[in-house]
Amino acid sequence: MTELEQMGKFAKEASFLLATLGTNEKNQALRACAAALRESKTQILEANAADLSAAKENGIKGAFLDRLQLTEKRLEEMAAGLEQVASLPDPVGEVLSMQTLPNGLIIGKKTVPMGVIGIIFEARPNVTADAFGLCLKAGSAVILRGGKEALQSNMAVVDVFRHTLSALSLPADAVQLITDTSRESATQMMRLNGYLDVLIPRGGAGLIRSVVENSTVPVIQTGVGNCHIYVDESADFEKAIPIILNAKTQRPGVCNACESLLVHEKIADAFLPAIGHALQEKKVEIRGDETTVSLIDGAIAATEEDWATEYDDYIISTRVVKDLDEAIQHIRRYTTGHSEAIITENYTNAQRFLNEVDAAAVYVNASTRFTDGGQFGFGAEIGISTQKLHARGPMGLKELTTTKYIIYGNGQIRE
Amino acid sequence: MTELEQMGKFAKEASFLLATLGTNEKNQALRACAAALRESKTQILEANAADLSAAKENGIKGAFLDRLQLTEKRLEEMAAGLEQVASLPDPVGEVLSMQTLPNGLIIGKKTVPMGVIGIIFEARPNVTADAFGLCLKAGSAVILRGGKEALQSNMAVVDVFRHTLSALSLPADAVQLITDTSRESATQMMRLNGYLDVLIPRGGAGLIRSVVENSTVPVIQTGVGNCHIYVDESADFEKAIPIILNAKTQRPGVCNACESLLVHEKIADAFLPAIGHALQEKKVEIRGDETTVSLIDGAIAATEEDWATEYDDYIISTRVVKDLDEAIQHIRRYTTGHSEAIITENYTNAQRFLNEVDAAAVYVNASTRFTDGGQFGFGAEIGISTQKLHARGPMGLKELTTTKYIIYGNGQIRE
Repeated sequence: MTELEQMGKFAKEASFLLATLGTNEKNQALRACAAALRESKTQILEANAADLSAAKENGIKGAFLDRLQLTEKRLEEMAAGLEQVASLPDPVGEVLSMQTLPNGLIIGKKTVPMGVIGIIFEARPNVTADAFGLCLKAGSAVILRGGKEALQSNMAVVDVFRHTLSALSLPADAVQLITDTSRESATQMMRLNGYLDVLIPRGGAGLIRSVVENSTVPVIQTGVGNCHIYVDESADFEKAIPIILNAKTQRPGVCNACESLLVHEKIADAFLPAIGHALQEKKVEIRGDETTVSLIDGAIAATEEDWATEYDDYIISTRVVKDLDEAIQHIRRYTTGHSEAIITENYTNAQRFLNEVDAAAVYVNASTRFTDGGQFGFGAEIGISTQKLHARGPMGLKELTTTKYIIYGNGQIRE
Repeated sequence: MTELEQMGKFAKEASFLLATLGTNEKNQALRACAAALRESKTQILEANAADLSAAKENGIKGAFLDRLQLTEKRLEEMAAGLEQVASLPDPVGEVLSMQTLPNGLIIGKKTVPMGVIGIIFEARPNVTADAFGLCLKAGSAVILRGGKEALQSNMAVVDVFRHTLSALSLPADAVQLITDTSRESATQMMRLNGYLDVLIPRGGAGLIRSVVENSTVPVIQTGVGNCHIYVDESADFEKAIPIILNAKTQRPGVCNACESLLVHEKIADAFLPAIGHALQEKKVEIRGDETTVSLIDGAIAATEEDWATEYDDYIISTRVVKDLDEAIQHIRRYTTGHSEAIITENYTNAQRFLNEVDAAAVYVNASTRFTDGGQFGFGAEIGISTQKLHARGPMGLKELTTTKYIIYGNGQIRE
């Protein structure tokens, strides 16, 4: 038995007990873990400082270093996040339906914990607390594998949780961290069938692709978003411009930001210079088709690659289309199935867009930035699914559960 | 672009149109396909005869040959099956929830077609019609890959459907058959990401393992069932014996048949001789632990392997356990997560079994043979999921859909 299989076995054992915990016990544990995080501030920040200085020595800088860093404020947010999860409704044990068959069998469908959840993530140590909190509340054990740059921080945080759980006579193996950060350990984790019930990657496109390609454990694919906004002929510019600016610039580095703008040809002359100016004021680079380049000063020519690119940056691709059909065709070709929006005052076009565009979230006259568990009212989010199995769109606590059929009989046999 | 990618592209195109079809159009198509099956009886049976004689030449016989064979009766069942699917409620377009956020955004969660579904199966040509019917009703295109032994039969059936769809001005590519039955084509199908939204294997444990190990497309694992019945101390023998006989012998070759019997030690002396006699009358071989062998004449010693084996045959493994805890431990170790049952008159033990045993279906005082889409009232079934993502237990039309969020805005942007 490999070390990872051993971890899987421990997690499975823990999951059996977690599945039987009541809501109050889980909430107490979450609040105790939040308190312990605050009490262990010094150790955790020290561990994080060690990660940071090692990262700097290795030449890491910029946004990556920022994501790696923990501060008192971020630690407090992690603790508050656990308390927030404690305050959410328990997703386990809801009987979704119950019916009596003609033969008297009573069949109910009930939400139950997933069992053992694997989370594979990159530099952000706060994922450790977020993922643990959601999995515990959903009654599942979690096996975490973070990036090697955050190892000391993750170990410190997980240690705090494990000690807290033990002190409450709960299984410490509700949360385990894979400390071997080699590529081999990641591959082993992706093939931990029989122990892991689901594997959720959280990170960039490269990580997600690697998990999808190598995993034999069921995966929930998250987070890649080449989101489009289509401005229809009848669009109200006073809605369109703020929505596009918001979707592109309110936080460009996230998956629900807008990456590509499609404009109906009949309004191109009027709309493109206006939106071009507004975007450029926000320092957004515009890469457009021929018409766009002719109508927006400073726009540069887009290549085929641009249409398929999630910039996560102050860049937007822009194309003029003949009509709604051509807009839908373009989106079908380049969508990653995350969030797509139409700006229109035309009822039929709005309904057609909602029906015919295939994505986790489709919008009329609103910013794509709303695709988010918090915004959707889930209270917390483990990620945004861009696949169609199990969960699609923001995933909250409910999406971390599965169901079982419970059948009450009285001696029934099948004819 | 490979031939399979081309098929994927055609299927995707077809799926966009299928997603917009109304219920009546889909039902008319299903009924027309049923009628066409009946009209094409001669061609289909001829094609099947060719498959059968080739199979016989290759030395295939017994149950395999029986599964491969189409008769007038089976063809009529296939046609009636399509009509039955036409009569079921449309799973597409149900708005599961809709709420207005404080900012005025209206967010609805709606069932939508999966898109393109892949089905990989073995010798039974009737799967071609079953799978096509369910996928069409669920608004999805299907790519089928059957076993090489059934190729002529499958081609004949798919031809009938494609011609019928074309005659109705519907896309023939709603159903496509992979006629290259090499191992390579199966592997290619399992890696058709971007075209296939889900892959469902229907067949034996070997096929399912191969799909789980090699597929990068999301998979729904189906059908492996090492099902247990635990007879508790307080069991009513008058319920226990008929239930066990039914679960073991009513149809031993299926996944919801009982494979393993656990008996509380306090009733072993009284119960084992009685059930042993009853099973042996039905020609069931008993492979037991030491106590079982000492109490049932003719029982033979079980090996470790027996506890993990899905016999699909007139064989049952039998073990005496100390109590409910030991029964649950045993089941946790050997379960395939399909169907598990307890026979008891004890309320607390019944509830504990329902809560603590982790399987798609858990029963009190009823036969495991009820785990079936038809029995559960789904009207039809594409398979029985033994995994925890997306669907668990019998999968009907609903389980062939996914959801999307539809968001009605009025200019909202994120703060």
